[in-house]
Amino acid sequence: MALDLRKAGIASDIVGVDSDPENARKAMELGLVDRVLPEKESLLEAELVIIAIPVGALGSVLSRVLDNVMDEAVVIDAGSTKKSICQAVVNHARRGQFVAAHPIAGTENSGPEAAFSGLFRAKTNIICERSKSSSDALNVAERIFSSLGMNTIFMEPEEHDKHVAYVSHLSHVSSFLLGQTVLDIERDEKNIFALAGSGFASTVRLAKSSPDMWAPIFEQNAEYLSQALLEYIMHLQKFQYYLMKRDVKELHRTLMEANRIREILNGIEDKQPKQIVENKN
Amino acid sequence: MALDLRKAGIASDIVGVDSDPENARKAMELGLVDRVLPEKESLLEAELVIIAIPVGALGSVLSRVLDNVMDEAVVIDAGSTKKSICQAVVNHARRGQFVAAHPIAGTENSGPEAAFSGLFRAKTNIICERSKSSSDALNVAERIFSSLGMNTIFMEPEEHDKHVAYVSHLSHVSSFLLGQTVLDIERDEKNIFALAGSGFASTVRLAKSSPDMWAPIFEQNAEYLSQALLEYIMHLQKFQYYLMKRDVKELHRTLMEANRIREILNGIEDKQPKQIVENKN
Repeated sequence: MALDLRKAGIASDIVGVDSDPENARKAMELGLVDRVLPEKESLLEAELVIIAIPVGALGSVLSRVLDNVMDEAVVIDAGSTKKSICQAVVNHARRGQFVAAHPIAGTENSGPEAAFSGLFRAKTNIICERSKSSSDALNVAERIFSSLGMNTIFMEPEEHDKHVAYVSHLSHVSSFLLGQTVLDIERDEKNIFALAGSGFASTVRLAKSSPDMWAPIFEQNAEYLSQALLEYIMHLQKFQYYLMKRDVKELHRTLMEANRIREILNGIEDKQPKQIVENKN
Repeated sequence: MALDLRKAGIASDIVGVDSDPENARKAMELGLVDRVLPEKESLLEAELVIIAIPVGALGSVLSRVLDNVMDEAVVIDAGSTKKSICQAVVNHARRGQFVAAHPIAGTENSGPEAAFSGLFRAKTNIICERSKSSSDALNVAERIFSSLGMNTIFMEPEEHDKHVAYVSHLSHVSSFLLGQTVLDIERDEKNIFALAGSGFASTVRLAKSSPDMWAPIFEQNAEYLSQALLEYIMHLQKFQYYLMKRDVKELHRTLMEANRIREILNGIEDKQPKQIVENKN
């Protein structure tokens, strides 16, 4: 975000705050930030504060940031869960200065070195509890997200958490546990290595994601994620039953059903200008 | 294969055989093959026959091909299961002319239009029942696969089917059923569309694969795949239990375990020269 907001001419003096001095040093070195300051000091003159930290700490840090920012400052978070974060500041006197956001973009990598320009382009951003943010704060947030090239939609926190449980969080769990299952059984890593060209590498890509980031997300969204997991397990068990019966017809029907995802995903690729060009070459 | 074997100067007169006339026409149009012939006619002068068809039909087609080829011809298959295919020709008088292979490469796309040069480069090929192929046939096969840039390893059919069940086939099942689960719950496709940037698209990529190709693979490898599925379901259920207990410590530990896959996958990326260059940019 820092990279792209600087590029767009929106952010001129970018101050980094990080609990890990090593990350702070790297962010300076990579030119992501102009200065590094302690949290309290950084807030004295900040006009815009973006909080992108693991969701387990987000509620309390957000409260403290709202306590200490200027009256004109706008605070935006980037947490992957929204109910518990919105709850944490629901009665805060400065709730209007806060915009609860979830810019949906990222890779399996984390830390300052994982940053690159253009990550957010043509992706979706979700803003929750729109009516609880002041119109000034909303205007700033919309300017930020549209300069990143994002398409913003609005949802209530419950609705957000439910949809991301099914579409995003379940994908991560299925990938993490696929990785764990294969590591568990294939004690000889040479075999994983040799066979990974078979689609394993892409399916398990998300299993490389940061546990520090994801464990708290899963915990905060436990209710909905657990429902999604049960549904997934049910489908897997039904598939195993068809397998045991050697019922090729039912296996084929199941795969045909899943195939419908192709149209939806192709629609997404069409939305991303860069990928279209690559495909046409 | 046709594209790359022609490029390498190994194949000069490429004859296509396809049960679907439309695919045959496209293969001609795309220059993948020089001529299209009926199966029997195509075998009259063929020095090398590569059979790449759904595994449900492979055993019987392979038998018939061996009946009709010249005495000097070499026949190679590219099936994703090996036990049932090897079994189908175990007593064939011309077993020595056959090399049972599984070149592990592919995308979620199929048909003539999905072909591109370089698909096999730096990937693994598995040859089964090496001792049942004549040394002449093995020499031809090794020349073919090394000209494609593949690294060939040797396994027995049972061992092959077991390892691919865990690493390749389970990945496909997990992806197909993730697609099915999400389609099942998210009746409004707008939400899938909006949230797919979250990692869903890559995890579910394999769910776009051809059911005609995959249903017979799953059926032929039902025994081992079923074991792999049970193991996967067990891990998912344990994870759900930790979720319900809000046991962040155990959730975190599980993710850390799965994270070990990173080293293995990074090793694979290092093997592929093209990707290294892209990563360093």
